[in-house]
Amino acid sequence: MIKYPNGQTVSPHKSDIDYSRRGMSLENDINSSNNYYLETDKAVIHKKPTPITIVNVEYKSRATAKITEAYFQTPSTTDYNGVYRGRYLDFEAKETHSRTSMALSIIHPHQLRHLESCDRHGGISFLIVRFVAHDETYLVMASAFLAHLKNLEAKSVKYSWFQENGYLIPYNYSIPVDYLKVIDGIIDGGK
Amino acid sequence: MIKYPNGQTVSPHKSDIDYSRRGMSLENDINSSNNYYLETDKAVIHKKPTPITIVNVEYKSRATAKITEAYFQTPSTTDYNGVYRGRYLDFEAKETHSRTSMALSIIHPHQLRHLESCDRHGGISFLIVRFVAHDETYLVMASAFLAHLKNLEAKSVKYSWFQENGYLIPYNYSIPVDYLKVIDGIIDGGK
Repeated sequence: MIKYPNGQTVSPHKSDIDYSRRGMSLENDINSSNNYYLETDKAVIHKKPTPITIVNVEYKSRATAKITEAYFQTPSTTDYNGVYRGRYLDFEAKETHSRTSMALSIIHPHQLRHLESCDRHGGISFLIVRFVAHDETYLVMASAFLAHLKNLEAKSVKYSWFQENGYLIPYNYSIPVDYLKVIDGIIDGGK
Repeated sequence: MIKYPNGQTVSPHKSDIDYSRRGMSLENDINSSNNYYLETDKAVIHKKPTPITIVNVEYKSRATAKITEAYFQTPSTTDYNGVYRGRYLDFEAKETHSRTSMALSIIHPHQLRHLESCDRHGGISFLIVRFVAHDETYLVMASAFLAHLKNLEAKSVKYSWFQENGYLIPYNYSIPVDYLKVIDGIIDGGK
């Protein structure tokens, strides 16, 4: 069942939509999906490179530069953004092995602030969360997630909250995480 | 003079808008402008990290990871994107020291393809080009630039083309490259 923002639920044909696990990491699955969207000219959504502080570079020749000392930075934005149907899309993807909840520690506070800003400026901001043990990948709108956090004392968000407030993302062979199907429902629902 | 897409030209007050050089690199100037836009909550536009292929990482302790071998990748997208007034913005920035033209070799073909895709999907795609010798920074729409390239045999685009088809980007102390002023004209002009 896909829950759309207008409260309507849709039962897709089993033959069309599948939610079963494929064993790949969420990042790989999203990258494959984005490549498919790009190749079929459906959307332009990319993963941002990992931010790195470069300390030392060796220039062996004019053409080749070898980075010999660098460090990972804390990301100040989310990993993914792009354009679809004229809309700005921005999201972060996380997977958890817990059966019961997603620890908030896996999302940086400035990533949440970034999602909130993008939402305020008219973008479509969301999280993609995979519960590996349940073999389910949910899309949750940043606005709903952030509203939930405001009244939350726990340091994690329950699996049941995702079931109630998230949209289960369908799987298909070409598009392992077909999140634009959910986004279509959100845009058509009036967001 | 700022040329707006509807053909109208606007002569701003000299005291308000300044086009004079500040000696900083274009990248620094755009980063400062984006920071100002972010801090004043006007727009959310970031430079993407430089894409790098990591070959080797040393883990001295659990908390610290040192990259000891990595290489620069050819970027597959542009350097900047984000959201403004509900619109997806995507652009690449280049500076040239030539007085007469900008060599096309400084822009990767896949960056041009990326700008074209973003434009087709309803984003606002453009280039920011600084002519250092003229102390001028132009915004040109990707669609106009790509149309010009189609009939171009030369391997460079003339300075005079930018003067005729670009929008001179105003400078001010807080916003060294105030390109959103030009984008306002483009959005209000009906793009």
